[in-house]
Amino acid sequence: MKNRRKLGRGVAVVGAGMSKFGMYKDKDSKDLFFEAYQELLTSVDKGLDPTDIDALYVGNFSNDFFMHQSHWGPILSELIGVTPIPATRTEGACASSALAFREGVFAIASGFYDVVLVGGVEEMSKCSTEQVAEGLALAAVPYENQVGFTFPGVFGTIATAYFAKYGASHENLMDITIKSHNNAPLNPKAQFPYTIRDMMNQKIEKAKAKGGPVPQWQTEKDFLRDPRANPPVAWPMHLYDCCPISDGASCMLLVAEEIAKNFTDDPLHVAGIGQGSGRGLNSAPTLTSFEATKRAAEEAYGMSGLTPKDIQFAEVHDCFSMAELLHIEDLGFFKAGEGYKAVSEGLTRLDGPMPINTSGGLKCKGHPVGATGVSQLIEVWNQLRNKAGKRRVPKRDLRIGAAHNLGGTGGTSTFTILERR
Amino acid sequence: MKNRRKLGRGVAVVGAGMSKFGMYKDKDSKDLFFEAYQELLTSVDKGLDPTDIDALYVGNFSNDFFMHQSHWGPILSELIGVTPIPATRTEGACASSALAFREGVFAIASGFYDVVLVGGVEEMSKCSTEQVAEGLALAAVPYENQVGFTFPGVFGTIATAYFAKYGASHENLMDITIKSHNNAPLNPKAQFPYTIRDMMNQKIEKAKAKGGPVPQWQTEKDFLRDPRANPPVAWPMHLYDCCPISDGASCMLLVAEEIAKNFTDDPLHVAGIGQGSGRGLNSAPTLTSFEATKRAAEEAYGMSGLTPKDIQFAEVHDCFSMAELLHIEDLGFFKAGEGYKAVSEGLTRLDGPMPINTSGGLKCKGHPVGATGVSQLIEVWNQLRNKAGKRRVPKRDLRIGAAHNLGGTGGTSTFTILERR
Repeated sequence: MKNRRKLGRGVAVVGAGMSKFGMYKDKDSKDLFFEAYQELLTSVDKGLDPTDIDALYVGNFSNDFFMHQSHWGPILSELIGVTPIPATRTEGACASSALAFREGVFAIASGFYDVVLVGGVEEMSKCSTEQVAEGLALAAVPYENQVGFTFPGVFGTIATAYFAKYGASHENLMDITIKSHNNAPLNPKAQFPYTIRDMMNQKIEKAKAKGGPVPQWQTEKDFLRDPRANPPVAWPMHLYDCCPISDGASCMLLVAEEIAKNFTDDPLHVAGIGQGSGRGLNSAPTLTSFEATKRAAEEAYGMSGLTPKDIQFAEVHDCFSMAELLHIEDLGFFKAGEGYKAVSEGLTRLDGPMPINTSGGLKCKGHPVGATGVSQLIEVWNQLRNKAGKRRVPKRDLRIGAAHNLGGTGGTSTFTILERR
Repeated sequence: MKNRRKLGRGVAVVGAGMSKFGMYKDKDSKDLFFEAYQELLTSVDKGLDPTDIDALYVGNFSNDFFMHQSHWGPILSELIGVTPIPATRTEGACASSALAFREGVFAIASGFYDVVLVGGVEEMSKCSTEQVAEGLALAAVPYENQVGFTFPGVFGTIATAYFAKYGASHENLMDITIKSHNNAPLNPKAQFPYTIRDMMNQKIEKAKAKGGPVPQWQTEKDFLRDPRANPPVAWPMHLYDCCPISDGASCMLLVAEEIAKNFTDDPLHVAGIGQGSGRGLNSAPTLTSFEATKRAAEEAYGMSGLTPKDIQFAEVHDCFSMAELLHIEDLGFFKAGEGYKAVSEGLTRLDGPMPINTSGGLKCKGHPVGATGVSQLIEVWNQLRNKAGKRRVPKRDLRIGAAHNLGGTGGTSTFTILERR
């Protein structure tokens, strides 16, 4: 691979918006995307004339399956009133909207377009849990489906392999869960804005009120160790190791760098983009690393000229606690086999040297799969543009953040580095 | 819209391959894509080292629905042995692989990649006809589905509106069907390589052999007028106005113009690309024109500096005979309301001044929806590179051809102009 690919023209981010993530009986994909787009309109400092939008890219995993409706490009372009501009859907399982972002970057860097709206949407909660599990399994490779692997099973298997190889345990994964839940209450868009301690205390109060036996949890880990509070899903993945089922939408406005000043005096610059593909688990070279992520990282670092040490914080794809652990190693933030120690030492906490998933991550912010990739980049936008409120990374000169998005069982991975100059 | 958008870097086509289209009990999506890729490898004059491929884009409409499998990017990258390069799926209903082609163009024009494989695949025939109809309906807008429109119904409605507005009749559409079926036997990849006369004579012979009453058809139109031979599906769309259910795959190799000579001394150049989105029929400005196609044409002509008169032949998206009629008007080959006369005067025949669908079109070549867009461009490749055999357009100095791809009920449209210099 050529290590230092470059874009012919720079691309800037000048606007962002997302719906609150959650499970909505009364909102559909169109409602949620409209909500995201309305917020984006208010986020563009000098305003956006929608007729200036040249093209739309939208990530969606499988509303085909979940909602019996495909072909979301033109549906959303009509929704926001920008027909007949080109409107393209990208799909890379849970990385679908990171692909939309990337195609928007290419469309501008190619010189063809100047202003591109990118985003994603997914509507899952109107399906039963069984249907969602069946739908998500469409993202695995055929062999994995055929032998009955579901996603918790895949990441349970990976965790088992990691534990055996490096001596880690489920206790380390608990530290990831506790950390993400500590960030979530600070994010008004999060589906589960609760700390583990909050939930633990609530359950204790409830038990007391009912007059029954009161759980004897002292610490968050006591709670997470108790199979009645945190039952196994696919060992060692327990309930609190798994992200939820969510509905939501997200979008960002990309423009050519040379016209960014028409939209804001404070744009973010796309410093690095990377993407890779991976094999099914049956033929993957190892269970404890995703080659797609390594390739994505290599591309993005190569383009940007940056190294892992330059990244000041990151959103990574924590569909499961175990996934977060793999990614922080694959992305080079920690050495292979040492991520679990870093996590348990608190290095990835909001006030640590390498904050991970300040948004609460997929675990707490929610994971409407097609909307997730761009929503991760919106957290980077919020941090770098000083819009993250109480969850702002407490570093001086916050300038460089990144987002990592994973699709399927490692089939697709992206890594995107944004920079405030 | 800015009328003369340009790419920062030129893009050339240097290879192409496709499976034979058909209904296969014994081949799946992977078999078909592999077949297409193998043909592509032999088509690159100076050879292709697969490790030179930087990225893969693949169009697929809804194997999610048809085959219960999504996330085709990494599945196909693993299949052809190019993991971990980026592998992205695009979806725009029946225009899915034309979108893959376009994103490949952007990825190269952006300067980021030099060599990109683009293609498409769809596997439909293992579903029942009812399932296929249900699956295809996912591509319509939500309102159209809700009121029970299927695709033959949509194009039947459009035909009724066109007939009323311009005085055309089903007789004119028959001329489209007869023309496409005349081209098909000359295309070895066609699903139905039979002329209408062939099929008519075969049925007459069969009736004679059975000793029953023998149909009194003298001309192809006698055959097409007979509802026993050509029953109505959704009036005025009859059986022979509708394209078939198909399985198939297609791919093309795109490279930066400046390195094209490493692959061939006879590349094709991407002279113009265009894409547009359209509204649902409920809010479309008219039934007798697709605004998405008009926008796509405007972009592609604008980029290329060419006009409809410069296009020497074209593949257009004839999912139904009526669709072909609309498109040849929307693309500017004939004036609005005059296409039907042109068709019946033979102007779009292989030996006419503006040959349309020399491949046999979707009607006869087949329509594995995700593979269609790139397969249309492969017909342009075959014609311009003098590989079309007996269906070669009989014009001196064949230099410029184009392909038009439509998704859904006009939701997505693309127009791509290729040039041999």
